[in-house]
Amino acid sequence: MAELSSDPNVVNGTTLMLEPLEAAVVTAIRRQGPLSRSDISEQLDYSRASVTGIVGRMIDARILTEAGEGKSAGGRRPFLLDINPNLGHVVGVDIGATSVDVALADFRGNILERACEAADVRGRPENFLNHVGNLIDGLLARRGASPTEVVGIGVGVPGPVEFVSGVLIAPPLMPLWEGFPIKSFLRARFVNASVVVDNDVNIMAKGEHQAGAGRGLDNFLFIKIGTGIGCGIISNGDVYRGADGAAGDVGHICVDYNGPVCRCGNQGCLEIMAAGPAIAAEGRARAESGESLFLAARLAERGALTAVDVGDAAAAGDRAALDIIRRSGRMIGGVLATLINFYNPQAVFIGGGVANIGNGLLSAIRQATLRRATALSTRGLRVEFSSLGEDVGVIGGIWLALEHVFTIK
Amino acid sequence: MAELSSDPNVVNGTTLMLEPLEAAVVTAIRRQGPLSRSDISEQLDYSRASVTGIVGRMIDARILTEAGEGKSAGGRRPFLLDINPNLGHVVGVDIGATSVDVALADFRGNILERACEAADVRGRPENFLNHVGNLIDGLLARRGASPTEVVGIGVGVPGPVEFVSGVLIAPPLMPLWEGFPIKSFLRARFVNASVVVDNDVNIMAKGEHQAGAGRGLDNFLFIKIGTGIGCGIISNGDVYRGADGAAGDVGHICVDYNGPVCRCGNQGCLEIMAAGPAIAAEGRARAESGESLFLAARLAERGALTAVDVGDAAAAGDRAALDIIRRSGRMIGGVLATLINFYNPQAVFIGGGVANIGNGLLSAIRQATLRRATALSTRGLRVEFSSLGEDVGVIGGIWLALEHVFTIK
Repeated sequence: MAELSSDPNVVNGTTLMLEPLEAAVVTAIRRQGPLSRSDISEQLDYSRASVTGIVGRMIDARILTEAGEGKSAGGRRPFLLDINPNLGHVVGVDIGATSVDVALADFRGNILERACEAADVRGRPENFLNHVGNLIDGLLARRGASPTEVVGIGVGVPGPVEFVSGVLIAPPLMPLWEGFPIKSFLRARFVNASVVVDNDVNIMAKGEHQAGAGRGLDNFLFIKIGTGIGCGIISNGDVYRGADGAAGDVGHICVDYNGPVCRCGNQGCLEIMAAGPAIAAEGRARAESGESLFLAARLAERGALTAVDVGDAAAAGDRAALDIIRRSGRMIGGVLATLINFYNPQAVFIGGGVANIGNGLLSAIRQATLRRATALSTRGLRVEFSSLGEDVGVIGGIWLALEHVFTIK
Repeated sequence: MAELSSDPNVVNGTTLMLEPLEAAVVTAIRRQGPLSRSDISEQLDYSRASVTGIVGRMIDARILTEAGEGKSAGGRRPFLLDINPNLGHVVGVDIGATSVDVALADFRGNILERACEAADVRGRPENFLNHVGNLIDGLLARRGASPTEVVGIGVGVPGPVEFVSGVLIAPPLMPLWEGFPIKSFLRARFVNASVVVDNDVNIMAKGEHQAGAGRGLDNFLFIKIGTGIGCGIISNGDVYRGADGAAGDVGHICVDYNGPVCRCGNQGCLEIMAAGPAIAAEGRARAESGESLFLAARLAERGALTAVDVGDAAAAGDRAALDIIRRSGRMIGGVLATLINFYNPQAVFIGGGVANIGNGLLSAIRQATLRRATALSTRGLRVEFSSLGEDVGVIGGIWLALEHVFTIK
């Protein structure tokens, strides 16, 4: 919550500028949900009188609202305080290689409206972001709201991001975006919004941490399996980005020194061996060789195969498809075992378009992980699908935005 | 610096209890060396008058001393303040599989006396730690000091440690130590010392961070190559331990699914493929096959070979020995490339007994790392030998102790 904006963050007459203690109240409520004045006083180690004063000013400033009664600890039931959901709108944007998800949320992070469209990131960023702007306008219109009411936008992009500037660095999927000023471009249209940009997997990790099964965990990994494979890292309760913002680039970990050449120039990278296109290509090979009648029929029908088709075949009991998915899961699980030995996380959450192709993938990943990682580092480890499913990216974008809408004095 | 001790930490009349702001002054001086009152005022954002008061009290309490004059910023040259080196003694203990290093230091972390002896951790911990106690007594005697003057002991052990309790958990090299209360055992003898126990590689990472080439870096790895292979992780300026204290256990990362069975039960772990015993065994094979005349002669002379012998052979230009070392370096570098893609550190420092066997190992590690890791994550990466050499462990122990000698009010 410490990003300093050069523009005055004034929306609808509410100053989005907080004293440090006010910021601590907001953080506590966001982490735990509605709290009473006594809860806040106890947790922040401030006198009940000071907290009552601070909370009073925050209610006057429309930052907090009274939100029903809590449990009694003997006497009168205490009033609970929550963030005022109507303080402004925030937007989460999750840009994928072939699609874009946009969601409009209230100030508590509840999704109000959403849109998902096919989109191609390989074109000019101006065109892409203008389209995103139109989608946001559409969502606002459904709520009768205007672009000036958007106070924060969190954007996830499928490439390496320099976090402070919000600029992509040498993004392989979207070379025209290199160095493009996403933040100022979107601010020109949504003039009251602070805009934050991060790597797509980092925002997924953030979404899982703020609103999913990662709540309350300090150290976990979020693996996204799609066209590529990436990893978001939560370290001591925060997104870990590494020296160059490149942390979590696990798709280019080598799993076979003699494997096929990857777009990065190395051989046998996890991504080219096990991600969506590899599963699709292997499915095509099994269709053409006659090993899978299901996939041969699907190929004849559609002219091409995707990883989802292979998942459908596996769900229908097709052995060749099950083999393909298990092989992919074994490779991903093998790399994961290495990362678990190194990082000893509390949990690994798995998401992304290809994660949905069935339980066979998760079970192969789990087996390889448990087999290859040390007993100590797996004794309490959870390996699960993301609890937020396909929404995890936009939810992460919303929370990234929420973390940056207040400026601390 | 936040460990709370149940015993009163009173030594020679000096209370080792600090106000939070005093603790911040100590931390600033430890990080940057001697500072003037203006430096402190500026860095901690406190008025010059408050800082003068605090510093005065800390000088009276013998925590700080005036340490010469600094550079003038125009007017009179300012007095610099440093930690009083004579506030008490601290001890660093680095327990290896076959040896123990002990060093006595002053309160600034300068080593005053040291001892290194062969020792076997496979026996009873009481015997081992009594021997360590005798070594410490010997170092104290050389300085005319008594055991009551030891205010902190930092201990590194070659196994997984539950940091808060300081107890080893299922340590493969030293099963008799499982659950042994190292802290209270040493405190019974050094009654004024706070005792802190950590994994040996974690203390090496700490030593490099506090007193070596890792000073000022936030995120780096320290790889120890010896009988085993381990990794210490500095994350956001602190040692990262993971969910179960098992982080950095890279020796059991699989590099060959069909490799030999490791003591952990898996096949082809990095440790069994590339650490000291593997290098020695490969050396013996080349000696016996006649491929290395140097190693055959050394084997005939000594009856056994170590990794150091293979290093000597390589230094003498023996091709078979060079091959062995390069193979080991390639495997370590391959795993390191994976960790670099995942963690994107600023630097990797390499230490441990086997690291000393020559530049061939470092150069093979570097080559494999640069070849396999992504361009972005290696563009600013340093891969170097530890700048503290064989002292890195005891220096880390000393700094671990220094971090815990003060209790914050």
